[in-house]
Amino acid sequence: MNTPSVPELTPPLRLLLGPGPSPVHPRVLRAMSTPLLGHLDPKFLEIMSEVQAQLRAVFRTQNAFTIAVSGTGSAGMEAALVNVVEPGDTVVVAAAGAFGNRMVEIAGRAGGRVVKLEVPWGETCDLGRIEDALRKEGKVKAVAVVHAETSTGAHQPLEGLGKLCHQHGALLVVDTVTSLGGVPLEVDAWEIDACYSGTQKCLSCPPGLAPLTLSQRALDAVKARKTKVQSWYLDASLVADYWAENKRVYHHTAPISMVYALREALRIVLEEGLEARWTRHRRHSAALMAGLAAIGATPQAQEGRRLPTLNCVRVPAGVEDATVRRSLLEDHSIEIGGGLGPLAGKVWRIGLMGEGSRQENVLAVLAALEQALAKQGKGPRPGAAVSAALEVYARG
Amino acid sequence: MNTPSVPELTPPLRLLLGPGPSPVHPRVLRAMSTPLLGHLDPKFLEIMSEVQAQLRAVFRTQNAFTIAVSGTGSAGMEAALVNVVEPGDTVVVAAAGAFGNRMVEIAGRAGGRVVKLEVPWGETCDLGRIEDALRKEGKVKAVAVVHAETSTGAHQPLEGLGKLCHQHGALLVVDTVTSLGGVPLEVDAWEIDACYSGTQKCLSCPPGLAPLTLSQRALDAVKARKTKVQSWYLDASLVADYWAENKRVYHHTAPISMVYALREALRIVLEEGLEARWTRHRRHSAALMAGLAAIGATPQAQEGRRLPTLNCVRVPAGVEDATVRRSLLEDHSIEIGGGLGPLAGKVWRIGLMGEGSRQENVLAVLAALEQALAKQGKGPRPGAAVSAALEVYARG
Repeated sequence: MNTPSVPELTPPLRLLLGPGPSPVHPRVLRAMSTPLLGHLDPKFLEIMSEVQAQLRAVFRTQNAFTIAVSGTGSAGMEAALVNVVEPGDTVVVAAAGAFGNRMVEIAGRAGGRVVKLEVPWGETCDLGRIEDALRKEGKVKAVAVVHAETSTGAHQPLEGLGKLCHQHGALLVVDTVTSLGGVPLEVDAWEIDACYSGTQKCLSCPPGLAPLTLSQRALDAVKARKTKVQSWYLDASLVADYWAENKRVYHHTAPISMVYALREALRIVLEEGLEARWTRHRRHSAALMAGLAAIGATPQAQEGRRLPTLNCVRVPAGVEDATVRRSLLEDHSIEIGGGLGPLAGKVWRIGLMGEGSRQENVLAVLAALEQALAKQGKGPRPGAAVSAALEVYARG
Repeated sequence: MNTPSVPELTPPLRLLLGPGPSPVHPRVLRAMSTPLLGHLDPKFLEIMSEVQAQLRAVFRTQNAFTIAVSGTGSAGMEAALVNVVEPGDTVVVAAAGAFGNRMVEIAGRAGGRVVKLEVPWGETCDLGRIEDALRKEGKVKAVAVVHAETSTGAHQPLEGLGKLCHQHGALLVVDTVTSLGGVPLEVDAWEIDACYSGTQKCLSCPPGLAPLTLSQRALDAVKARKTKVQSWYLDASLVADYWAENKRVYHHTAPISMVYALREALRIVLEEGLEARWTRHRRHSAALMAGLAAIGATPQAQEGRRLPTLNCVRVPAGVEDATVRRSLLEDHSIEIGGGLGPLAGKVWRIGLMGEGSRQENVLAVLAALEQALAKQGKGPRPGAAVSAALEVYARG
């Protein structure tokens, strides 16, 4: 057994404009290097309460059960679904991309009878289709949708959906991994029952935790289960007893440093204010999209349903996707994302999330794209994309 | 919806001598504040390969499947069990404390028919009992044991157990959360099929990842499953495709900063060398236990089966457990652990793990205990416990 020779950690400095992780503020990096408390230390329990209050503010909810799951965003998805879905339950899933499909997969593994509403990648699901399913499919336990489909850049409307679900006795489960902190989200006003996110997108915290909030309706459903939740690690009843201020029963060791990071990231989010943040994300996305249009990259998501946080555009005709992304990484140290599944090789996914949503980043990625395309003998005259973006900024 | 007022993060500095997290080396804290790469960045994939090589070295294995699960130690337990156990499979679990019981619970939720070998808390399981179960219970899919039972301080012998399991066609699953990097462990030589740990114990890394290694035998069992693994997040086949050097298929976003931390923590472990580390843990535990004997605190675990990493002793007669632990925390900023389950209020669990296993910490906690007991009118003359420890050090 040889001892591997592993040198000092010196990764290159990247501008992270892919689908996540997004750039992390130095204050958050510093928080992570804070010496640790124990996970049952009274001072750490205070920090947990603070994080819960912060998460309630960003989720816009009063839900008592508002926590950070000890895993990445996908663990949040699994936590939401395995707690709500019992074997045999009918679950209606709007599947408009890779993350909708992931919900189908996880709800199925939880034993759910999944009614998959397939939506072309780039479109969103009509509430009418969901209503039809609620009428036709008998007793539906839950409806699951992705608010911000990271694989397509599509922005699913949610207003009215919670009420509709509740009229039919169903719970509403919503994936807000790429929306929380970047676009408007109102957990209470929109009557969302289970809402999860990730830390590494619009909150600009490293990956490793999944914010999750459950309504009283969802908790009642968990309490009324006839079977145990299949995951002990993600069992909401057990996890709730650790996070509840009047209980604090040991369940598993919380990822202390990640909680520190999330606390600092949420401080930054709330210092800016959610409304200001939503406006900022819209503004820089509009500039970016104008620049992308100038290089012939057209949006994948349908008009009026485009996320400002994750800008998904079709690779211009005749341009080699992989070569461009390699050039961005190697020549400019900028990361953008490629396509997933049926969109592999066909789209670029440019994240302007949290700290990433800044004018200098918009200009940097557009200039880099111009230059990478020029290498292939494609693209507009030098400065055309950057100028298009600056025109948007000039309009205010 | 009020914006919560959350001040700057200024937790007190603690000496962490509980059951984990253990003290983290400043190099590891610094690694965590390194700006992030994307989880599919070629440079991050190199870092993953390095961490895999490091984990193979500390696990003493050549297993290709050697990774860090994106969750804390309990996620490692769940990953090991839900991949190996299919509904209806018989699983023999040696349950000698809280973590053996947790294995029973998780194997049961995975649909296993669990044969629980109940062992008094503080004792270990005779291999003869496991052999009897293997003979009597028909086809056994897996035997699960805890190498280092964190709730009792007992050290389960493992030599010969792997061979025994394999003679009966069963897999061996071992929890090494509180042993990896602190006491001898030989995954390949001892024929362990699924072995998981946590990062926040003897590796002295913050909590948030669970090292996991699976033998070819275990992987073959996963491949031969008739049913899907109930957890998508922890499905070894999917996770393997992300970690495999020739694949790197996106599964979920890895907790980048935690991987950085683990890499640095493992560098420190391997710089010291495993044998030197095991010796160091034995040495400081011997000194601590001598000091604890001088204050009347006797070991919970049976003679010859005591962990040097987690020193579990009975609270001396007439001493108020909670008052002493509060005094340690408030007057000395030292964390030690209390008892779990049937041992609540009855034992102290003093971890000397990784960076925590140092002479200055042994002296600090013994002096603090002497003083806390003196406040209750108990304990020996000032310096008696510290002197007893120093006598052990003097013997070399």
